Amino acid sequence: MADARADRFKRLLDLMRENELTGILLKSPANLFYFTGYLGPGILIVPLDGVPFLFVHPMNYELAEQSVSNRVELSKLRSTSTIKDVIDELPESVKVKIGFDDLSAEEYLKIKDLIGGSILPASEYVWKLRMIKDAEEIERIKKSCEITSKCMELAAELLEEGVLESEVKAEVMEEMFKLGAERAAFEIIIASGPKSSLPHGGPGDRSMKKGDVVLVDLGVVYEGYCSDMTRTFYIGSQPEEEVSRIYEVVMDAKSLVQEELTIGLTAASLHEKAYKEISSKGYGDYFIHGLGHGLGIEIHEPPRLSPLGKEVIMEGMVFTIEPGIYLPRKFGIRIEDTVLVKRDGIEVLTSAPYELTLP
Amino acid sequence: MADARADRFKRLLDLMRENELTGILLKSPANLFYFTGYLGPGILIVPLDGVPFLFVHPMNYELAEQSVSNRVELSKLRSTSTIKDVIDELPESVKVKIGFDDLSAEEYLKIKDLIGGSILPASEYVWKLRMIKDAEEIERIKKSCEITSKCMELAAELLEEGVLESEVKAEVMEEMFKLGAERAAFEIIIASGPKSSLPHGGPGDRSMKKGDVVLVDLGVVYEGYCSDMTRTFYIGSQPEEEVSRIYEVVMDAKSLVQEELTIGLTAASLHEKAYKEISSKGYGDYFIHGLGHGLGIEIHEPPRLSPLGKEVIMEGMVFTIEPGIYLPRKFGIRIEDTVLVKRDGIEVLTSAPYELTLP
Repeated sequence: MADARADRFKRLLDLMRENELTGILLKSPANLFYFTGYLGPGILIVPLDGVPFLFVHPMNYELAEQSVSNRVELSKLRSTSTIKDVIDELPESVKVKIGFDDLSAEEYLKIKDLIGGSILPASEYVWKLRMIKDAEEIERIKKSCEITSKCMELAAELLEEGVLESEVKAEVMEEMFKLGAERAAFEIIIASGPKSSLPHGGPGDRSMKKGDVVLVDLGVVYEGYCSDMTRTFYIGSQPEEEVSRIYEVVMDAKSLVQEELTIGLTAASLHEKAYKEISSKGYGDYFIHGLGHGLGIEIHEPPRLSPLGKEVIMEGMVFTIEPGIYLPRKFGIRIEDTVLVKRDGIEVLTSAPYELTLP
Repeated sequence: MADARADRFKRLLDLMRENELTGILLKSPANLFYFTGYLGPGILIVPLDGVPFLFVHPMNYELAEQSVSNRVELSKLRSTSTIKDVIDELPESVKVKIGFDDLSAEEYLKIKDLIGGSILPASEYVWKLRMIKDAEEIERIKKSCEITSKCMELAAELLEEGVLESEVKAEVMEEMFKLGAERAAFEIIIASGPKSSLPHGGPGDRSMKKGDVVLVDLGVVYEGYCSDMTRTFYIGSQPEEEVSRIYEVVMDAKSLVQEELTIGLTAASLHEKAYKEISSKGYGDYFIHGLGHGLGIEIHEPPRLSPLGKEVIMEGMVFTIEPGIYLPRKFGIRIEDTVLVKRDGIEVLTSAPYELTLP
């Protein structure tokens, strides 16, 4: 990872030079992790010339010391230090045109007058790098997807009449840890019956009933990298016709996108393909979210496979493909895999059977 | 809760009037939940005159419909709508002087020129309300603390030589769900041996050894409300003298603050009391974080019991008291409870024995 990190800094500096930035201020813990190996709160300053500085509070100093490579100079803040103090310490040469990743509006308003030059959003440059995963990142994501896939198979075994959503959740969490995951990548969704019509499930616990549709959305973090997958099941052996029909429509939309996905298309056009397919079957109004999202250190990253996704699909991107159809107060069906873009198509990294009825 | 919510809007309007705001734009899901009962992404506009509007994307519309009271008008955005579209829809009268809670700097820069009048940070007004918990909130927090306390007792039973941190974590998660928690309030910390010297634990899993100090930090969410507590244990019957001594210092600092805590003090002064006590025993440099933090819908809320905490302690506040001493690469000891401020002192809401050695 050390070499990969040196390369990341180098490419960031290239982008800064191209865009005439004299410095960049990074605050997002995911960006700190990407460039330094330290995952926690702090402020990383990358000057166009000279060594990057990582400022952390005393509380996180020991962890930072253990995590960062010697390519970064570590600086301990006082407990009372704020972002203003960091800005005050920066040489004027860095503050001529400084980019930032994710300041809050309040922070921005507090510091903008302390910058002699200009200060402007620059997260797009970091995303340009982070969107394309390197070999080591891909290895971690693959392992993360493997764990999630095994957890999905366990979930499928556990679903049955009378079981509580929370019971499935607890057993799946246990399995995640056993398989070496650090944590769940997001709050696991086990949404049964009418709750499945809410894409993220609804509040409260519920006992599964015969005739329920159950939506299971899982992801883990392995060595800092996420995975994400969804399967939808039916409790019982004879799904109603509408459930089976919608399952097919979702599967077809997903297969179509996966077959037609090639480098050079826009993220929005992939969403559009799925939307057209689902609309042609009469369910366009019930496909109420984007087709997918990038993932890596974070569970939601660019590209956005949605009508707003301007990103161009490139080799090395990792994202989800997850069409879904949701009938309010009835049921919802979503099928999702994490995929890696290769030169000549995609590799699907998550794997579990696509079976509506339970094993 | 419906009456409580009506009252919250009323008090927000009072604060807006006092500060001459013509409208307020809320984006934090916790604020949306506080005012409307809906927990998810969206934009809530509270005009000084007229009915509040909640804008949500199609993906979350059904959940919003199920959650919000009829005191709020619900408006469905298009999938492609952004915050700009919401601003465009607002009447000019609302945009004369509009406050916001937590916009990102990028969002702020995108919309500020669309506002004819002025736009400024206003989260402090909402915090003024949220910092003081009402009866219903206190009930939920108490129940949340009860569940966390039971989980802590389970954790204490599970700790022993040879057990993995992740095994304890998995069993505690299972217990949380069993006891009715929606989810963990944060990533559970089970940090053993030298990892306990990192206040949030370190990466990776670890098997517990005789002579380990183990720091356990737990919290759950119950009906939308958080709890938080920490205990520190020793694996073995005869803790080294330094471990026992530091345990006493931490306990003494905590007891001192709890005894001297009265309405009218500042949050910073409470931190100062603990810091002085710990310093007088020679460990001031190893107390590397704030004494505590408010909690409620979110796990970290004002007041900040830190050198920066300007808030004045008032009846109805709920926060943690959690002094800690961390010896780098050796061990760390923290003891934490969630407390409620009452007219004449505090009520400690979390409960589990304060015993360094295991039962």
